[in-house]
Amino acid sequence: MIIDPHTISRKDRYKLSTGTILPRPIAWVSTMSADGTLNLAPFSFFTIACSQPMTLLFCPQMPEGSTGKKDTLNNIEMVPEFVINIADETLAAQMNLTATALPPSESEFDYADVTPAASEVVRVPRVAEAPVAFECTLQRIVYVNDAPGGGATVFGEVQRIHIRDDVYVDGYVQLASLQPIGRLAGNHYCRVTDIFEMLRQ
Amino acid sequence: MIIDPHTISRKDRYKLSTGTILPRPIAWVSTMSADGTLNLAPFSFFTIACSQPMTLLFCPQMPEGSTGKKDTLNNIEMVPEFVINIADETLAAQMNLTATALPPSESEFDYADVTPAASEVVRVPRVAEAPVAFECTLQRIVYVNDAPGGGATVFGEVQRIHIRDDVYVDGYVQLASLQPIGRLAGNHYCRVTDIFEMLRQ
Repeated sequence: MIIDPHTISRKDRYKLSTGTILPRPIAWVSTMSADGTLNLAPFSFFTIACSQPMTLLFCPQMPEGSTGKKDTLNNIEMVPEFVINIADETLAAQMNLTATALPPSESEFDYADVTPAASEVVRVPRVAEAPVAFECTLQRIVYVNDAPGGGATVFGEVQRIHIRDDVYVDGYVQLASLQPIGRLAGNHYCRVTDIFEMLRQ
Repeated sequence: MIIDPHTISRKDRYKLSTGTILPRPIAWVSTMSADGTLNLAPFSFFTIACSQPMTLLFCPQMPEGSTGKKDTLNNIEMVPEFVINIADETLAAQMNLTATALPPSESEFDYADVTPAASEVVRVPRVAEAPVAFECTLQRIVYVNDAPGGGATVFGEVQRIHIRDDVYVDGYVQLASLQPIGRLAGNHYCRVTDIFEMLRQ
């Protein structure tokens, strides 16, 4: 069938894209407000933008019917630094807790019982338990649409990479040690266990 | 360990990001040059940017040591339209063939033996065999770094969605019919078969 996206609801557009563009990696993003309150939230609209300079991007969405942006985007506008943590399977339940909408004055670090660890370059702490964390400074924000229902794309330049010793061995990331999880549609996630290889021709 | 990305090679930055930011969905992008030659290539730096307007993005990289951009980006600068096709497991081998570097005058549609099907809104054809295809018009290109070794981010506004009838039933995407594949590091891919659910709190 052929669907004109202008003729369906935002919710159906969202479901069509999240149901077909998958599996998605998850950025577990820590930020800090101007008064120092820490925030932590997962984003699966997330990818690699560039290797020189090393740049990652994620796309926070503006909830429909809301009056403003999510805390993460508000914080980055105030304190233009963030850490993209990678959650493994052992952290999945805690990551899921941080998707809860808390008041801006409450920290998801406390709510989900994860430990903030000081970063080396940025003021925002990383998640101590995460096997990988990228300290980022804000490079730019592209507002595709900054109204409720819209979305922004946040580009971060990586300043430091924290990686657990057993995950990075002899210059290669060890997938079996990393135990990554991917995001699917609805409430579904996947493990990365059913793997195959295709040599480039 | 803590790594300063400015002190390692581009290749190691690339390996560190592609090895830890995964599983990644794959955009199989068809484009057209000014003289009408069709191009088709896979990109796993790909995500959803916005649902209103429905916007997808992917990030073509400039090969290190090269003198210019990949055909996909060149084509989009000439003909600002493209189709993001989604390859399922049955198309994986053909998709892999389209990652081969062909001269700009040769079409990957012929090389990989996939069928171009006319789009409804854009001039660029979609892949007839793909279970899902998004017809896009170029919204903007953000050049993080346009030199060799750099990368660009291409935002496309979705104008039409083609989806096979058995993949979209009663308003829900059927994962079992879609049979998606994800990109890992190196030559590795995954099937999405090891699934779990976490209810949002």
